[in-house]
Amino acid sequence: MNGCTVAAPGSVANLVCGFDVLGLCLSAPADLMDFRILDEPKLIIKSADGYPLPENPAENTAGAPIIEMMKELDNTIGFEITIHKKIKPGSGIGSSAASAAGAVVGVNHLLGNKFTKEQLIEFAMFGEKVASGVKHADNIAPVVYGGVTLIRSVAPLDIIPLKSPNLHVTIVHPQIEVRTADARAILRRDVSLKSAIRQWGNVGGLVAGILMEDNALIGRSLQDEIIEPVRSILIPGFKDVKLKCIAAGALGGGISGSGPSIFMLSETEEIAKNVEKVMQDEFTKLGIDYYTYVTFINKEGAKVINEF
Amino acid sequence: MNGCTVAAPGSVANLVCGFDVLGLCLSAPADLMDFRILDEPKLIIKSADGYPLPENPAENTAGAPIIEMMKELDNTIGFEITIHKKIKPGSGIGSSAASAAGAVVGVNHLLGNKFTKEQLIEFAMFGEKVASGVKHADNIAPVVYGGVTLIRSVAPLDIIPLKSPNLHVTIVHPQIEVRTADARAILRRDVSLKSAIRQWGNVGGLVAGILMEDNALIGRSLQDEIIEPVRSILIPGFKDVKLKCIAAGALGGGISGSGPSIFMLSETEEIAKNVEKVMQDEFTKLGIDYYTYVTFINKEGAKVINEF
Repeated sequence: MNGCTVAAPGSVANLVCGFDVLGLCLSAPADLMDFRILDEPKLIIKSADGYPLPENPAENTAGAPIIEMMKELDNTIGFEITIHKKIKPGSGIGSSAASAAGAVVGVNHLLGNKFTKEQLIEFAMFGEKVASGVKHADNIAPVVYGGVTLIRSVAPLDIIPLKSPNLHVTIVHPQIEVRTADARAILRRDVSLKSAIRQWGNVGGLVAGILMEDNALIGRSLQDEIIEPVRSILIPGFKDVKLKCIAAGALGGGISGSGPSIFMLSETEEIAKNVEKVMQDEFTKLGIDYYTYVTFINKEGAKVINEF
Repeated sequence: MNGCTVAAPGSVANLVCGFDVLGLCLSAPADLMDFRILDEPKLIIKSADGYPLPENPAENTAGAPIIEMMKELDNTIGFEITIHKKIKPGSGIGSSAASAAGAVVGVNHLLGNKFTKEQLIEFAMFGEKVASGVKHADNIAPVVYGGVTLIRSVAPLDIIPLKSPNLHVTIVHPQIEVRTADARAILRRDVSLKSAIRQWGNVGGLVAGILMEDNALIGRSLQDEIIEPVRSILIPGFKDVKLKCIAAGALGGGISGSGPSIFMLSETEEIAKNVEKVMQDEFTKLGIDYYTYVTFINKEGAKVINEF
């Protein structure tokens, strides 16, 4: 084997009440990444489809993690990574995490799975640092583990892979720009203890619902009275879209990452498609272009789909 | 059957990070309560051991819930309840909840389990209102269900019985007074978003640890940086006791309810007894009288132990 191809999917971080701690892996969209072993300690990152990527690997979301990883290897081999970028940056569904996590999963495969998933996440976080200035694992963890992951603690990093609920996900990506920095800046520094208690009650309920496979409990727990009321003002139509999606049968949902995408969880594909229709109607009415995806929670995460 | 006896155990509310949402049921200490059916719609509450109880059932923690329950019955029968009070009021281990939950469990048994556990909790909360002015279910829920319970939401009431970890509990009740009202009053109204996020990460971790039977995760998640730093100043020696108990092998622990009792969870009875020794030494050194208990998490909750 000289190379492999990895499907590196999108992800939803900030799972409603689980701001900064809960995320899930999507089945689609996914970047495709080709990996090839080089016989010298070099790292080459290429874009397959003209999408402009920084050529310097240290400035590239896929490259920075591999630079860190290569520090742990003897200086004899290198890698060429060709990225078919399918997940739009700035969408809020983990475009940079897909590249970073996909990169470490692919190279690790070529190395005979030398590193643990925890180590892969540590490497991949260097990609998030390149992308946003912050080494966070909210999107990387679900892409590496699949399913839903809990980040109990950032320092020290403590990631708990939960389970992968059999739920369908509908996503709408309205074509507006929400800068992560702005989405961070508008958050209040302090929250009322009362709201915080309701929030951690819901986080407990959501984790319990996932582990007990209780979809109704998952739905009841998908409430966020701290982040969503503030951030949703950056997304036109958010409140109406959400209410109408739930009326159409979705268990619940909210802002994906820091937006502008909105995600909804549903128990059946039929409901997930009805929810898509609701999203399309609403953003058409608002005169805002959009992409929609109907997919499901990805049990496996970033995955080697071919060897060559 | 004309009557029965119920063992109504203590409980630990405010399970470290799970302030206001997580509680567990203890195996000991427990109140003993005798129930007898009367052939007229009357309610009599008696103290078996000279412990002064309000004679008016409406002002009594065990009486108020039964008054509510009797509103749902036809007006033909009544009950006499004799309470052997073993759990000291003001200890922070759910003395009033034991009486309230024990009362509804006993009367419900005499009624052929007419009411669901959820209904029993709703009735029993009237007892907490008598005791503290607030209808809360933090202690009642674990006593009615057994094990560990999550109160996801108070309005509407949404209680999730989790599991009963096979863990031992050591409790020290220092003989000092911490008034619940004072313990409430010193809490800050606002908390930083950063702390709140760490707290709900730990709540997620604690719920996951319980449901995944991962004791190490339970231990890592038993952290509270919001309530404990404030309330522990009301309990002399708290910080030292906690550190030394963990050094002695406890997974973790904290203030039980609003104090002054301190609880610690351990994986073995041997560790739980070593932890007791640490607690005894510390409070002896401080010149503060105390009671200690070495017990375990109670899977069954309040339980009928005799019929007559």
